Amino acid sequence: MGLSSRIEAAMGRAIEGAQGGPGRLSSALDYAVNPGGARIRPTILLSVAMACGDDKPEVSDAAAVALELMHCASLVHDDLPCFDDADLRRGKPALHRAYSEPLAVLTGDSLIIRAFEVLAQQAATAPDRALGLIAHLSHRSGMPNGICAGQGWESEEKIDLSAYHMAKTGALFVAATQMGALAAGQDAEPWEELGARIGEAFQVADDLRDALCDEETLGKPAGQDDLHGRPNAVRQFGVQGAVQRLDDILSGAIASIPSCPGEAALAQMVRAYADRIVPAAAREVRTVPGE
Amino acid sequence: MGLSSRIEAAMGRAIEGAQGGPGRLSSALDYAVNPGGARIRPTILLSVAMACGDDKPEVSDAAAVALELMHCASLVHDDLPCFDDADLRRGKPALHRAYSEPLAVLTGDSLIIRAFEVLAQQAATAPDRALGLIAHLSHRSGMPNGICAGQGWESEEKIDLSAYHMAKTGALFVAATQMGALAAGQDAEPWEELGARIGEAFQVADDLRDALCDEETLGKPAGQDDLHGRPNAVRQFGVQGAVQRLDDILSGAIASIPSCPGEAALAQMVRAYADRIVPAAAREVRTVPGE
Repeated sequence: MGLSSRIEAAMGRAIEGAQGGPGRLSSALDYAVNPGGARIRPTILLSVAMACGDDKPEVSDAAAVALELMHCASLVHDDLPCFDDADLRRGKPALHRAYSEPLAVLTGDSLIIRAFEVLAQQAATAPDRALGLIAHLSHRSGMPNGICAGQGWESEEKIDLSAYHMAKTGALFVAATQMGALAAGQDAEPWEELGARIGEAFQVADDLRDALCDEETLGKPAGQDDLHGRPNAVRQFGVQGAVQRLDDILSGAIASIPSCPGEAALAQMVRAYADRIVPAAAREVRTVPGE
Repeated sequence: MGLSSRIEAAMGRAIEGAQGGPGRLSSALDYAVNPGGARIRPTILLSVAMACGDDKPEVSDAAAVALELMHCASLVHDDLPCFDDADLRRGKPALHRAYSEPLAVLTGDSLIIRAFEVLAQQAATAPDRALGLIAHLSHRSGMPNGICAGQGWESEEKIDLSAYHMAKTGALFVAATQMGALAAGQDAEPWEELGARIGEAFQVADDLRDALCDEETLGKPAGQDDLHGRPNAVRQFGVQGAVQRLDDILSGAIASIPSCPGEAALAQMVRAYADRIVPAAAREVRTVPGE
């Protein structure tokens, strides 16, 4: 089974297990998770797990699902009127527009809780790994260093920019590489840098997309960073500078991969990821000046 | 150390461990949790754990804290403008009034995540118990049977009233008795009925308070059930009928206590709880007619 089918099958089981209560909330859970976006975080997680041997695939599946559920929850809550007040997400109405604001709050809460439930239930064949995965996921999601903290920095008068970016975008990428290693029974620590660098690259790519793409391509409103006065690498370095920075970061990411059986395949995955996340518009800008 | 000091000390450590990120969100986490209400759920949890021997107090502490954090998170989210739009909670401004709506959403999310983090970190001396506790807490909090489901029923055109009450109020009381047993290494199943009955009693007592007490006594707006057209035992049975029902339920609760070393002390705790939750105004009504 390819990575993508493996992820979709595991996500399907996770949402299926949360069905059966109030009908609209049940339906909203499915809406928040399907159809998915690129499933980048669980793809990285499973790639690392496979590079480390993936000796307990049910544990890796649970880890991948838990991470993606947490990510989907954060999207639903970030889109709420009191944050981004987004109309669109993944090319369809944001959940609070399609359902309601109360159901959007409850969907986010339910997905967060389900993430931990999946780990406790499906990774229980390896209790120490399951607890490590739960500790890592919560560390990278909550306070003081996770995505909640990242969003929380936006309510501060003085933002610690490096802590902000690391928590808001980086945290779940670090979770992806570290949880992948943990799921395969390996030490998480050596995998932090790879996750941090992929997260940094993702942030620059996201800045490029926000600056260069239109709403139709993005599936969500464009130009939001300018609108909300948020820091953006394109504003800071220009388009070419930002693309160069992206390439540098990804080279560093590949160099940081710890020695493991699947090292070469993993480097290949990062290169493919790099090609995919650079928006076409940025490539055009890059190739224009006399190349 | 008395139960109350034990709970406050453990809660203090849990919030301390989440500090250090963005300042306002850090402060909001503390605001959501301190000063606490009656800490009824962790008190029940620890009482059951002690009745079962409490052989790993650090595991019981983690369970009690996780349950109370989840409860506090639900209060913060339930008070949001899109739900109850409450001005007051525990006698002070609701969190979204004191901080902001974004920080209230993030506070709830962070407390939910912290609940699982505390279990993964502090109950790790008994990995199987820790995983059982995480599975039970998520089952009673999320979808399709937990407090999220309970709140979700309010968005349905046709409410399943018994599922609604069980999920909205009963779920965390069942979690209290079952997690208390699990924390002490006992089977959770025989403890379900006690939790369900205490939850039912709490619901009737809450209905009495909502109908009979003023805002100052409650520390939150009164008459909310009438205002939101929610089912209420006083509307259904009258004040005396509701008090009688409360007594019957609590007798059933005591009768349901499984055989265990601390059975007598636990029955005493339930009786004390019964005396405390009946509002004084209801007692007055009960003693008036010719007694």
